[in-house]
Amino acid sequence: MPDMIAVERALDLVLEAARPLPPIVADLADLPGRILLEEIRADRDVPSWDKSLMDGFAVAAADLGRGKEVAIAATIAAGADPGALAALPPGQAARIMTGAPLPRGADAVIPVERSRAGSQPDRTALQGPVRPGENVARRGDDVREGAVLLEPGDFLGAAEIAVLAACGRIRARAGGRPRVAVLATGDELVPPGEEPGPGRLRNSNGPMLEALARRAGAEVRDLGIARDDEEDLRRAIASGLDADVLLLSGGVSMGLYDLVGGALRSAGAEVLFERVAIRPGKPFTFARRGGTLVFGCPGNPVSSYVIFQVFARPALRRLASHPTPVWRMQPGRLASPIRQKPGRAGYVQARAVFRDGRLDVEPVPTSGSADLVSCARGNALAIVPAEAASLPAGSDVAVILLDDHGDR
Amino acid sequence: MPDMIAVERALDLVLEAARPLPPIVADLADLPGRILLEEIRADRDVPSWDKSLMDGFAVAAADLGRGKEVAIAATIAAGADPGALAALPPGQAARIMTGAPLPRGADAVIPVERSRAGSQPDRTALQGPVRPGENVARRGDDVREGAVLLEPGDFLGAAEIAVLAACGRIRARAGGRPRVAVLATGDELVPPGEEPGPGRLRNSNGPMLEALARRAGAEVRDLGIARDDEEDLRRAIASGLDADVLLLSGGVSMGLYDLVGGALRSAGAEVLFERVAIRPGKPFTFARRGGTLVFGCPGNPVSSYVIFQVFARPALRRLASHPTPVWRMQPGRLASPIRQKPGRAGYVQARAVFRDGRLDVEPVPTSGSADLVSCARGNALAIVPAEAASLPAGSDVAVILLDDHGDR
Repeated sequence: MPDMIAVERALDLVLEAARPLPPIVADLADLPGRILLEEIRADRDVPSWDKSLMDGFAVAAADLGRGKEVAIAATIAAGADPGALAALPPGQAARIMTGAPLPRGADAVIPVERSRAGSQPDRTALQGPVRPGENVARRGDDVREGAVLLEPGDFLGAAEIAVLAACGRIRARAGGRPRVAVLATGDELVPPGEEPGPGRLRNSNGPMLEALARRAGAEVRDLGIARDDEEDLRRAIASGLDADVLLLSGGVSMGLYDLVGGALRSAGAEVLFERVAIRPGKPFTFARRGGTLVFGCPGNPVSSYVIFQVFARPALRRLASHPTPVWRMQPGRLASPIRQKPGRAGYVQARAVFRDGRLDVEPVPTSGSADLVSCARGNALAIVPAEAASLPAGSDVAVILLDDHGDR
Repeated sequence: MPDMIAVERALDLVLEAARPLPPIVADLADLPGRILLEEIRADRDVPSWDKSLMDGFAVAAADLGRGKEVAIAATIAAGADPGALAALPPGQAARIMTGAPLPRGADAVIPVERSRAGSQPDRTALQGPVRPGENVARRGDDVREGAVLLEPGDFLGAAEIAVLAACGRIRARAGGRPRVAVLATGDELVPPGEEPGPGRLRNSNGPMLEALARRAGAEVRDLGIARDDEEDLRRAIASGLDADVLLLSGGVSMGLYDLVGGALRSAGAEVLFERVAIRPGKPFTFARRGGTLVFGCPGNPVSSYVIFQVFARPALRRLASHPTPVWRMQPGRLASPIRQKPGRAGYVQARAVFRDGRLDVEPVPTSGSADLVSCARGNALAIVPAEAASLPAGSDVAVILLDDHGDR
């Protein structure tokens, strides 16, 4: 019987095997959600010219005093060429729009709300006083040319996309997107759209692992169901080994027809471990062949779910160059006790809710590792250390806040 | 000048105008991330037969006592037809695989780890005792036929997809996906791939709003840039009014060329409000024409970002039938003081980190509403009530934890 290893050791082995994919150069539309792999510097000062922050009238502050009626010398729109503007004549004002360049001779803007029509159509009555620089942004106030705006390892959310666009970077170097193949195994399985005969059941692991891998940012290919037959299994596995990650479910237990370990070895894969001290999910086979990682998840759906979240998701994130591939654990307070047989770390489906600034964690009632509904009702995994026989209500508990459950 | 309304009132008007889209019936692969709009019941007992939870030997518990060597009467694989199994002869055992049906006459399973080879190849030495029911799941233990497994309003994450698959539901009724059109306006703008001439700048709001809308689950169409010209603007707006939501940026201030309000009215849209007591983002125009909602965001990028998060995202989620469209506010502790001019609610870019079970909130230094980099560095919005002039360090603060910033 293969040795059982601790969760931490298994995760170390998985992350060691998961090397970041080669960087790609992607278009702006394909960058959101990826990890940036280059430094982005400002290609110019922002703003690139002294500009008005309001719609109003550009003046020389010293001219205005407590306010006066002045001639309107010009109208300046956003988009005007700063170099082509006439200087503001002393004692006059220029009508100016938000974002428009400030004319030479002006150093402040009176907002339109502080103006009234003048005695002539080309005059306006302005309310003072105004400080020099008021409602004006100076060239470079936001960003200096050459300043580092984004760094390698930054997650590309919408704001980062806007920074790239503002710098004219319609392409950037970023982390790859892992290609995942999903294969369910077992003579008892029928596709979800078929009526299962006696002794059969529908393949739910396949669609679940597909959804999980997509959610983690992967491109996913479904390989369907392989029979408990060495030849069929070997063929199916071979067709998945050109992916970056092959997610298998079933066939990793100790039964006569648990052929996955053997089929992987005969396909030339190195099996790194076959049993992990985790509940659910103990019979979890991890292997690699060349650059392909193989996660042999147990056939029980909740076990497959937990193995994906605890091991496969960190691997996918590392392949995609995430600087923090592993879930960050959050400290929570347990609302009801959890009991377990010591020896394996428990990853318990739970509902975690922030309440009064604290994370309350309520384990979800379950009938066992086939109980998908408990999985759907939870939004977190509460972690019970391997050596613990129980965690009483009110005790501190480490929690993984899953990202696939709508709101918290 | 149009009246300025409070954030809460504006959000009420937005949500009132945002009616859930007609439900669709989607395939399993297109369901993740949508909201389920029907009840899902188990179409059979799960398990559908008494089954083994382990690889091992099925026995009658009463037969075994403290253990004995017994004859192996049969080998039962997962997928075997329960009705076709021979009954287990008294005093014998059946080799059985995880998930395989239990033969009549057996009521417990001895795991393979508690067996040794017998004196003959067709015999095994089993270690007792075993309780009736041990390592066995009875028909219906997990789920009873007809039980409600998922309900209308449930978010379809991976576990829910697995539940649908297990029930044979390869299609289900779910919320629609909003179609969004994005249009930037302003004579000063050039596309991100072009070199801006004097007085010009690159359109960063368009790509940002696209990324935000996609992240919120929408299908997005980019309408590019409209000039500050009534005819051009009217044409561009008309081409966006067949979407469910039109996201505009720029042209909503009080300048001579802020034509968006007028263009919307001349396109037959009803303008519901034009100024909201929010900082940044005051000049925010919200309109509707038929079923189309129009968000006229300010041209300043940080203002557009905040208006999207505070108003457009809740609207998109309501269109998609999310039962909780509005961000849930989390209570946090402010690490540094925030000051503001009272009168508008402040939505301040901040970095929120869980530390010792508490949410620490550090405002991100910023040079103002054009400072996209502050937006990229934050992962949260800290909310300062409109009437407050300051929030001191250490004070409680309500926080929106944004979902577009990688890890927290």
